[in-house]
Amino acid sequence: MIRRLTVIGVGLIGGSLARALRAAHGVEEVVGCGRSRANLDKALELGVIDRGTTDAAAAVAGADMVFLAVPLGAMLGTFEAIRGHLTDDAVITDGGSAKASVVADCAAAFGIVPPGFVPGHPIAGTERSGVEASFATLYRERRVILTPHRDTDPAASARVEAMWRLCGAEVSYMSVAHHDEVLAATSHLPHMLAFGLVDMLAAMKENNEVFRYAAGGFRDFTRIASSNPEMWRDICIANQDALVTMLERFSSQMGDLTEVIRQGDGERLLAIFQRAKNARDHYVAGVPNDPE
Amino acid sequence: MIRRLTVIGVGLIGGSLARALRAAHGVEEVVGCGRSRANLDKALELGVIDRGTTDAAAAVAGADMVFLAVPLGAMLGTFEAIRGHLTDDAVITDGGSAKASVVADCAAAFGIVPPGFVPGHPIAGTERSGVEASFATLYRERRVILTPHRDTDPAASARVEAMWRLCGAEVSYMSVAHHDEVLAATSHLPHMLAFGLVDMLAAMKENNEVFRYAAGGFRDFTRIASSNPEMWRDICIANQDALVTMLERFSSQMGDLTEVIRQGDGERLLAIFQRAKNARDHYVAGVPNDPE
Repeated sequence: MIRRLTVIGVGLIGGSLARALRAAHGVEEVVGCGRSRANLDKALELGVIDRGTTDAAAAVAGADMVFLAVPLGAMLGTFEAIRGHLTDDAVITDGGSAKASVVADCAAAFGIVPPGFVPGHPIAGTERSGVEASFATLYRERRVILTPHRDTDPAASARVEAMWRLCGAEVSYMSVAHHDEVLAATSHLPHMLAFGLVDMLAAMKENNEVFRYAAGGFRDFTRIASSNPEMWRDICIANQDALVTMLERFSSQMGDLTEVIRQGDGERLLAIFQRAKNARDHYVAGVPNDPE
Repeated sequence: MIRRLTVIGVGLIGGSLARALRAAHGVEEVVGCGRSRANLDKALELGVIDRGTTDAAAAVAGADMVFLAVPLGAMLGTFEAIRGHLTDDAVITDGGSAKASVVADCAAAFGIVPPGFVPGHPIAGTERSGVEASFATLYRERRVILTPHRDTDPAASARVEAMWRLCGAEVSYMSVAHHDEVLAATSHLPHMLAFGLVDMLAAMKENNEVFRYAAGGFRDFTRIASSNPEMWRDICIANQDALVTMLERFSSQMGDLTEVIRQGDGERLLAIFQRAKNARDHYVAGVPNDPE
């Protein structure tokens, strides 16, 4: 049971954690912290938090669990703001989509990586954002990856793991570098492709017509291009190296495919498409409780 | 009212047309034609067709409307098979996803483009295929593009247009070349990106893990990679030129984006993502009756 949970950044991710823990009777008190008083008032009104403050130092006072759900670009400033105001037994974790940059920001602010810090990443979300979009079941049957540092206290990891399990999530562990590579491949790269495709079509002079004739597949394919631009700017900068590597690998992959199309090599095209279909069908079959 | 509709290729596209016209009382008799007796028997059992034959020449005898819903790679052979067996007033149309190749195949088989031929393309479908996947409302509020040839009889176009309207579709006209370019951008290119991405991830040595940590966005993004491989091989070959042009344009677009990420230029990243989000949100807002 968490006595006092402080959520810094009460949006979709932070708000949904608070809602899920409340629903599971896993928290006594939720303190919300954010830059905007209006958003905190909305979170109060929605019952997501018990009280809110725009002062991060005050927000973490007395908290035994602190969750940083701010954009990656705001992590450093947040760590700096809470330094010196945490209780000794406080566990700190976060929801950032890239982990090396968060660990670096934490180390830069604290001088060391504190034993109570457990870097984490819930693989969940929608393309909507804000506390109004948050809901208690966002993390149910979703995966949460924890990437503890060598200085992280295993007892702190265990407390974060227990918190996420209470929300219905499945928790796994990997290294920071491996996390950043896997996420670059499965999330950051697809987002870049969707943003790039929509931007390219929007720039075509007949763009109204182009969008008008787009079918349902296009709609699904580009859904992630409606994601929050600031968040994705931050992710690109935070996970620059792994993302650039994946972009280059994809570019080479598509260069090969273009060449096969140019040659009109039906046999090789069929082999590529069949292999991709098998992998995708296999992937869908392995994802539980998500009807297609 | 269509007296006798012959559907060559009784799968998702052909079967759904037959079902829609039956539901709208727009057809008296439906004759199905295909290579596989088993599939025709299934179509009979499902009530999609009244009778079926594997002989295309026999199938079109006495038909006033002939719909070719065969893969693009089978168009030429189908035109050759029905040549000389059509009634004088028969209208022929098709559902091919690329139009220049179908018109060329028709001209190659008939020596000319017959006045009764109206090239067409219903922008509808799912990633599933086969007559079992067909349903009467597939075309409701979907767009159908007709690309009549200069030798096409306007009366034939009018009959095809009326047929699709009866299925609830919205019909528009454009040139063959323009159709092929628009579809390369909005459908063929996204399919290549989805196939390419899944194939690239499947080739990574840690691919099981990669797919395991993929989130919901990835699922939507790659749905179209589960599409029929033979169909997409045919589309790549049929619409080679327009597709290669789009692939090259996209490659250049992504090269620029990669460079901006490499430079860590947050301002430009934000501008690109914001522009793409605006275009995508605007597109979704303009698509009627498709709740998000």
